[in-house]
Amino acid sequence: MSFFGRAARDLFNGSPASTSSKLLLLLTVSSGGLVAYSDSRSQPDEVPASIVNKNDGQKKKVVVLGTGWAGTSFLKDLDASMYDVQVVSPRNYFAFTPLLPSVTCGTVEARSIVEPVRNIIKKRDGEIQFWEADCLKIDAANNKIFCKANFDNNTVGSEEFSLEYDYLVVAVGAQVNTFNTPGVKENCHFLKDLEDAQRLRRTVIDCFEKAVLPDLTEEERRTNLHFVIVGGGPTGVEFAAELHDFLIEDLVNIYPTVKDLVKISVVQSGDHILNTFDERISSFAEQKFGRDGIEVQTGCRVVSVSDKEITMKMKPTGELCSIPHGLVLWSTGISTRPVVKDFMEQIGQGKRRILATNEWLRVKETENVYALGDCATIDQRKIMDDIVAIFEAADTDNSGTLTMEEFRAVVDDIIARYPQVETYLNNQHLGDLTDLLKDAMSEDKKEVDIEGFKKAIHLVDSQTTSLPATAQVAGQQGKYLAKCFNRKNQCKEHPEGPRRFAGPGGNRHFFTPFRYKHFGQFAPLGGEQAAAELPGDWVSMGHSTQWLWYSVYASKQVSWRTRMLVVSDWTRRFIFGRDSSRI
Amino acid sequence: MSFFGRAARDLFNGSPASTSSKLLLLLTVSSGGLVAYSDSRSQPDEVPASIVNKNDGQKKKVVVLGTGWAGTSFLKDLDASMYDVQVVSPRNYFAFTPLLPSVTCGTVEARSIVEPVRNIIKKRDGEIQFWEADCLKIDAANNKIFCKANFDNNTVGSEEFSLEYDYLVVAVGAQVNTFNTPGVKENCHFLKDLEDAQRLRRTVIDCFEKAVLPDLTEEERRTNLHFVIVGGGPTGVEFAAELHDFLIEDLVNIYPTVKDLVKISVVQSGDHILNTFDERISSFAEQKFGRDGIEVQTGCRVVSVSDKEITMKMKPTGELCSIPHGLVLWSTGISTRPVVKDFMEQIGQGKRRILATNEWLRVKETENVYALGDCATIDQRKIMDDIVAIFEAADTDNSGTLTMEEFRAVVDDIIARYPQVETYLNNQHLGDLTDLLKDAMSEDKKEVDIEGFKKAIHLVDSQTTSLPATAQVAGQQGKYLAKCFNRKNQCKEHPEGPRRFAGPGGNRHFFTPFRYKHFGQFAPLGGEQAAAELPGDWVSMGHSTQWLWYSVYASKQVSWRTRMLVVSDWTRRFIFGRDSSRI
Repeated sequence: MSFFGRAARDLFNGSPASTSSKLLLLLTVSSGGLVAYSDSRSQPDEVPASIVNKNDGQKKKVVVLGTGWAGTSFLKDLDASMYDVQVVSPRNYFAFTPLLPSVTCGTVEARSIVEPVRNIIKKRDGEIQFWEADCLKIDAANNKIFCKANFDNNTVGSEEFSLEYDYLVVAVGAQVNTFNTPGVKENCHFLKDLEDAQRLRRTVIDCFEKAVLPDLTEEERRTNLHFVIVGGGPTGVEFAAELHDFLIEDLVNIYPTVKDLVKISVVQSGDHILNTFDERISSFAEQKFGRDGIEVQTGCRVVSVSDKEITMKMKPTGELCSIPHGLVLWSTGISTRPVVKDFMEQIGQGKRRILATNEWLRVKETENVYALGDCATIDQRKIMDDIVAIFEAADTDNSGTLTMEEFRAVVDDIIARYPQVETYLNNQHLGDLTDLLKDAMSEDKKEVDIEGFKKAIHLVDSQTTSLPATAQVAGQQGKYLAKCFNRKNQCKEHPEGPRRFAGPGGNRHFFTPFRYKHFGQFAPLGGEQAAAELPGDWVSMGHSTQWLWYSVYASKQVSWRTRMLVVSDWTRRFIFGRDSSRI
Repeated sequence: MSFFGRAARDLFNGSPASTSSKLLLLLTVSSGGLVAYSDSRSQPDEVPASIVNKNDGQKKKVVVLGTGWAGTSFLKDLDASMYDVQVVSPRNYFAFTPLLPSVTCGTVEARSIVEPVRNIIKKRDGEIQFWEADCLKIDAANNKIFCKANFDNNTVGSEEFSLEYDYLVVAVGAQVNTFNTPGVKENCHFLKDLEDAQRLRRTVIDCFEKAVLPDLTEEERRTNLHFVIVGGGPTGVEFAAELHDFLIEDLVNIYPTVKDLVKISVVQSGDHILNTFDERISSFAEQKFGRDGIEVQTGCRVVSVSDKEITMKMKPTGELCSIPHGLVLWSTGISTRPVVKDFMEQIGQGKRRILATNEWLRVKETENVYALGDCATIDQRKIMDDIVAIFEAADTDNSGTLTMEEFRAVVDDIIARYPQVETYLNNQHLGDLTDLLKDAMSEDKKEVDIEGFKKAIHLVDSQTTSLPATAQVAGQQGKYLAKCFNRKNQCKEHPEGPRRFAGPGGNRHFFTPFRYKHFGQFAPLGGEQAAAELPGDWVSMGHSTQWLWYSVYASKQVSWRTRMLVVSDWTRRFIFGRDSSRI
C-alpha cells in the first residue's frame, strides 16, 4: 500500500458513514496500517483511489479559499513543508474584523488592523503560494476550482485560471443577508469588510457636510443626520456606540450648528438588542443607549428601504411606518455566498441553507473538502442515531443489558463524540453522565436494557446547538484543522479520537472532533464603557470592562506591527480626537 | 464718506490703472481719508460704489475658493473677526502635498498628511463657514459664485447653492496638463491629490498581484511590472525613487518570484531630469538612478498612451517607439481649471493661458477678486512701461535731467515696485541700482536725460520671471494676502507700499507688493538620499540631506497631530517596512 493512501486516509477520519453504506471495507493489519478499498461511490470516510494515487511521490496539493479568520489561522498553524499549499482570496490581507466598527469613525485606522497575507505566509516553513482572485466555481467532481483575478485596470495576460486540489479548504466567509428586503442592496451600508468600513466612514462625514449646506430647511438637515442601524446585534450596537462617541467627542466641535439635529436609531426585530448576550448585558446596553439619546426601536421589521426613507412594520400592531434617513447600516445576519451555494448543489446539499460539515470539519458528502468559519456549520451527529451501536459496543458481555461498569468504560468516548452530552449535563446540573443512567436502572438489578438506555439518553440531543458565526469560532476551527493536517502521520499510527461506535473505519476515530471553547464576548457601548460575557457565566460591565477590552484586543492582534498601530491609534484618539477628513 | 468705502478702497490698493483710464478721481482730505468716485466703468484700482455701499453696517463678505496651500495659509492668518468669511472646497481637508509621493508607496499614510479644514478654521477668531462643494461658476459681473456639493449618495435637500461676495479669493489650484495627448486621461495615473496617491498605491500592488498570477508568460509578467513615469520633474522623480525603495526594501521579500522582472522608466522630453534644479543635482540624480537601475529616457515626447502601450517620439531622430507598460504616471505640468477658464473669458483674459494678477495678487480687470497659488500668475509690470513717469517723479526740479541725488531718492521705491531690478542686479553682480546710472551719465555733467535713463534701465525687464507653481509660493501668497486683508485700516491711514509712479490712486501704494522668498527645494532620491537646493546657490546632496529633508518636512506640518503621525509613520517604516495590503 502506498504512503499516500494512508496519509490521505488519516485526514479523512471522523465521520461515521451514512447508514445506506455501500462500502466494501477490508481491514487488515498490514505494515502497521489500515488498507481501505472502496467502490466507485466511495464513502465520505475514505479517500477515492484517484486522489490517493495521482500525486505519487509528490506533495499533496492543498488549496485554501479565503484569508479571513478561518483561512488565516489555518495557514498560520499549518506545517507548509508537508503540502503544496495555494491560497486564493480576493483580498491580499487579513483584517482584524472585530475592530471594523472602530474603523467606521476613525477610532482606529483601516491600515492598523490589516496584515498582508504574504507577510503571514512568508514566515511559514515551506512555500505557500497566494493568488489575489475570486474563486468563481468549485468543481467537486474533478477536484478543481476556477478563479478570476479582479483588478480595476487592465491586466496583461489572462486573469482567469484554474487550480487542482487534493484537499480543498473552503473558508470564504458569508455575505450579508438582506432577506430579499426591497431596496436594501441599493440603499444600505454593510459592515462585513474593510471597504465597507471605509465607505461608512466617508458617508458619515458626508452626512454632516450635507447637513450644513446652505439653503436647507431644518427638516432636511435633520434627515441628513438621521443614522439608522438595522439589527441590534454586536456589530450594529457597536457602530451606534462609536458614532455617538464620534459625535459628542469630535463632531460637535466642528459642526456646532447642527449638533442638536443628530439622531441615531437602532431598529431591532426582536424584543431586545444584543439578544445573544446575557440579559443583564442587554438591559445595561438599552439603559446606556437611553441615557445617550440613542433610540432603540424593538419589535420592528424593516419591509423596504428607499434612498430617502426606511419603512418598517411594527410587530404588535402590524402598522407600517416610514421614517426619512441620512444613512442606513444593515447588519442583520449572514447568508451563503453564491460559489458555496453552487458547490452545495453539486454535492447534494442544495436544499440546505448553509454548508454542512461533520464534526471534523469535513464537508458532508465529500471526501476531500473542508469548510470552516462563517461559510459552514457543523452538523452535529445525534447520539440517538447511534444509540443501538453505542449500546452494543458498551455491552461487552453481550448480555442485552448494561451494568454501570460497562457504561463507565464508554462514557469518555461518548462525551468526546457527542458534545451535546456535556451541555445537557451542565444545564441539568448533573456531575456525571452515569447520573442519567442511575435513574433508569431498576432498583434491584442495577442494569439497564436498550429501551431503558434510550429513555435515559433521549433528551440529550435537545442540547445540540450550532456555533455562532464569530471570529473566535473561525479562528479555533482554522487552528484545529491545521493541527489535523500536521499530525496525520502520528494519528494514523496512534488514533487519538473517541471510539468509533458506528460506521466504517477503524476502531477509533483518528482525531478528536472539533470542540469550540468559548472565551467570552465583548460589546463596547461607547463612552469608555463596555459589557463582557466571560466564561463561567460571569458578566462584567462598565469602564473597567472597556480597559479589559483594550487589553484583550491589543493582545489578539495578528502581528507586533498591527499591535503597535492599534495602540498608537487609540493613544492618538485620546490626545487629538478622531480625524474628520473625508478621505 | 462711509467707513466701508474707505475700508474697501484700501484693499484694492496696488495696481496702477491702465493707461486708457476713464476715471474721474477727486482727492480730498476729508476726515483723514480719501474719497473716490468712479464712473460706471470703474477702474481696477477702485471699488465700485455698489460694493462699497451694499453692506453698510455689516461685515464684508469674503469667499475663499479652495483649501490647498494658498487657501489654507490665507485662512490661517486672516483675522476672521473682521470679515464674514465663507470657504468653498470640494475637499474638507488640507493635504500636505509635498508628501504625496511618499503616500503612493505607504512610506507615510494618507491620513497622516491631512488636517480637516474645520479644525483649522475653528481655531481662528471669529466664525468661518465652510461648504464642501465644487465652485462651478464665478459670476464676476454680479459678485456671485455658483456651487454644487458632490456626494456619492443621495442628499436630502438641494445640493446647489450660490454665494455672494464682496471679495473673492480664488485658490482652486490647477489641473493636470495632458497636452491633449490621446489616451492619457483614460490610461494614466496622476499625482495631484490624495485620491490620486491612494489609487496609485493600490495600483502598484495590483501590478505585483497581476504579475504573479498563474498561467502568465514571463513577457506578460514583465509588462505588468513595467512602471513608466512621464515627466522628470520633482514629482515624477520622487515617485520613481519611492517605488524603487518600496521594491528593494519590501516587495522583493513578498513577491520573490518576480523581483527580477521589475523595471522603472522615467521619460523626459528635455535633456535632463530635474531641469528646474541646479545641474549638479540633475546629474547627481541621473547617476543615482543609473546605479539603481531606473532607466532615464531623455529627449522623448509621448505621443499616445493605450491601456497596454505607451508610444513615444525620439526627439533627435523623430522615430516612433512603443513599449508595453503596467502603469503610467503622468506628471508633466499643469493647466487651468475650467471654472477659472470661464472666469477669464468673462473678464477679458480669455486669450491668456493662465489667470493674471497684479503684484498685489488682485486679478487684473477686476476690482474685488484675488487669485493665488497654482491657479494664477503674477503679471509683473515692466519698468519700461512706467519709465517716463518714474523719470518725471524723480526729476523733482523739473530740469529734464536726473542727478544722482534725485535718482537715489526713488531707488528704494523702484526696487520695491519692480522686483526684476533686484534679480538683474544680482545676475550682473552689481551692488546698487545707481551703478547702472553711473555708466549712463556723461563724464562732465553727472546727469542723465530721459533717453539716457531709458538706455540704462532697458535691460532690467529681461529678468522678469514668473514664479514656480509650488506649495512654497502658494503658502507665502496666502500669508501675504491675509496680512493685507488684516491691515487694511492701518495701511489706509499710513500707506506702506512704494511710491505710485503711474496710474490713479494716492501718492503711495497701500501695501508693498508680494515678494517671493525662495527657501530652497528638495528632491528625495531614494535609498535615504536627497538633493537640496538651498538659498544662496548652495547645493547639498546625499544621506545628510535626507535627514535635513526629514527635519524640514516634520517641522512644516500643519498641526502637532500630523507632525506626530508623519514622524511615527517614518519610524514604523524603519522598523516594520511598508504595508502591502491592497486597501
